[in-house]
Amino acid sequence: MFSNADFMYMQRALALAARGMYTTTPNPRVGCVLVKDGAVIGEGFTQPAGGAHAEIQALHDARTRGHDPSGATAYVSLEPCSHFGRTPPCAKALIEAQIAQVVSALEDPNPLVSGQGLALLRAAQIDVRCGLLAHEAYELNLGFISRMTRHRPWVRVKIAASLDGRTALPSGESQWITSSAARADSHLWRARACAILTGIGTVRTDNPQLTVRGVDTPRQPLRVLVDSRLEVPLDAHVLNGHAPLLIVCASLDATRAQKAHALRARGAEVISLANHSSAQVDLPALLHLLGERGINELHVEAGPSLNGALLQQHCIDELLIYLAPSLLCDALGMFKLAAPASLAQRVTLSFQSVERVGRELRILARVGALGDNDKTERECAIDTA
Amino acid sequence: MFSNADFMYMQRALALAARGMYTTTPNPRVGCVLVKDGAVIGEGFTQPAGGAHAEIQALHDARTRGHDPSGATAYVSLEPCSHFGRTPPCAKALIEAQIAQVVSALEDPNPLVSGQGLALLRAAQIDVRCGLLAHEAYELNLGFISRMTRHRPWVRVKIAASLDGRTALPSGESQWITSSAARADSHLWRARACAILTGIGTVRTDNPQLTVRGVDTPRQPLRVLVDSRLEVPLDAHVLNGHAPLLIVCASLDATRAQKAHALRARGAEVISLANHSSAQVDLPALLHLLGERGINELHVEAGPSLNGALLQQHCIDELLIYLAPSLLCDALGMFKLAAPASLAQRVTLSFQSVERVGRELRILARVGALGDNDKTERECAIDTA
Repeated sequence: MFSNADFMYMQRALALAARGMYTTTPNPRVGCVLVKDGAVIGEGFTQPAGGAHAEIQALHDARTRGHDPSGATAYVSLEPCSHFGRTPPCAKALIEAQIAQVVSALEDPNPLVSGQGLALLRAAQIDVRCGLLAHEAYELNLGFISRMTRHRPWVRVKIAASLDGRTALPSGESQWITSSAARADSHLWRARACAILTGIGTVRTDNPQLTVRGVDTPRQPLRVLVDSRLEVPLDAHVLNGHAPLLIVCASLDATRAQKAHALRARGAEVISLANHSSAQVDLPALLHLLGERGINELHVEAGPSLNGALLQQHCIDELLIYLAPSLLCDALGMFKLAAPASLAQRVTLSFQSVERVGRELRILARVGALGDNDKTERECAIDTA
Repeated sequence: MFSNADFMYMQRALALAARGMYTTTPNPRVGCVLVKDGAVIGEGFTQPAGGAHAEIQALHDARTRGHDPSGATAYVSLEPCSHFGRTPPCAKALIEAQIAQVVSALEDPNPLVSGQGLALLRAAQIDVRCGLLAHEAYELNLGFISRMTRHRPWVRVKIAASLDGRTALPSGESQWITSSAARADSHLWRARACAILTGIGTVRTDNPQLTVRGVDTPRQPLRVLVDSRLEVPLDAHVLNGHAPLLIVCASLDATRAQKAHALRARGAEVISLANHSSAQVDLPALLHLLGERGINELHVEAGPSLNGALLQQHCIDELLIYLAPSLLCDALGMFKLAAPASLAQRVTLSFQSVERVGRELRILARVGALGDNDKTERECAIDTA
């Protein structure tokens, strides 16, 4: 069904898509390659929101280079859109350009598209095939896909720990368990996220800025601070204004109104989102809110308390763990949460990758149950027609 | 100084040496290749203790195949011995066979040899070079080298843990955190050790046999049980007689004499080796004792208490950690030992290797300070004359 040439061009489309790693949010990272008479005549990838989608970029590129796209094959790493968003539908543009064939990696999980883009193309007598390198296309956009299908971001929790799984000394000391190489690497993961989340405990002990530094990116992710009792000090680094800040408390009663006012005066947005106990922030509701705000990938850098609460409430999709070559013994763990009653009830994971970064090991692992769901969703999304 | 052919033949000698992985104890794993007129005329590796050393095997192999070793080059992964042990000195045999050149990977750290084998050869006008693939030869025999230079075994601690570094539930449940693939792999590490050490806690919760199973080996390592108060149940699996057993208690007072008698009646050796408190076993003294008994590599499979005591008393050289794709949160850790007062005082490691074994990650890490010492020793041992 797919030739070697198809694979090659789709790989190129995926490589182009990856060039939008830090910029396409809230849109998916998409690449497009136009091929005519065995040669690439145009290429494109999603521009920052409001700018052109990959297909439009590729058509424009072909024409700029003096090529007529009519009769060409378009390789797109995601189904061309069929709806008017901030830009007109790409499927229409491909039809108008008289593209002869479209090869797509994945159906767009966006319910506004979801097969309708491909249907539009087929109705215009364009030869459409879907499912080539679907897994790679899925991985590149798992944040966008999560938001479209689960109405919440893909949540990646970054943890720096000793080999025996300890993240901080009883004194709170945790800087720096890992080396500068691991810290530099983790800024690349911050940069690809739409938002970075932490808790009041981390603000107190580490006082982080939560900005992206040392990465060539035009965009700073939204900073989200879970601070149930609105205790963030007014001189905390996170209030430095270098990136937008959303502070989420449990309830905004009269005693906290003045603090909220002071925080807003420093440019922060302050909202309340209490869970049933009304003492804690409702974390699943926060994820839903962030999904509504267009957050595809949420990067978490928090301490054991918030990590434990996120884990308990099934809010974690992926762990990004830097294991340092050291032992800290009875120091603080990764998750402040009671052990399961039996091994059968443990949280299961699957290892995605292991890399050496500086002196450390970087382990990417997915939470089992969610991974299983995703697999099912992914397989359903592959059009084998 | 060394040609490509030298490297190739020494690599062959090292591969032969590795064939003695489970059998040469207490002798080092050594391989020998005899090359004459550009062809291999004989090969050998160390036979089980009391049997021929690698050089004698290779000379015998050459003669059996109808070759005269005179004028040949001998590649040996460790300096030929110069002393009468259970067998006559190999250096003499090489001289009598009129070998023309000897290329050795490493000087023998055995104080009874330590350069004297090479000196004997040189005195006989044999061209001697040393230091080719010394690192590989060192790694193959780090147990033997540790015993010769530090008078204690190389201590490798195996730990099966969840990704967050937890080894057992508060209930004691720990079987099976890791998969059957990881357990099968760990039997290969048991098999290469001269002894396997555990503590009374592990006997109580897991009741292990501590034998090598599923590995084609003619030899069972010595089992060593640290049991300060001689509490091992008489029906514990470790008393099954499938391998020798040494039980070490803190003191053999009158109340324990009867228990010791019952244990001896079941074939166990029982000794006392108290530390200054007289309530605990003196672990460094135990290592010294095991070194005296010819234990090169000591494989530890214990719980957090004994692991913590070994770590605190600088008795661990290497960690063999299987990380399972799961999280156990506030369950038992790897080392029951107070956290360091500051990060500057943490135990530092260096990662040696990371492999996937079944669903798990297998991480081999060395304790920093000891690794540094070894490096110095190794570099000193390379003869660059």
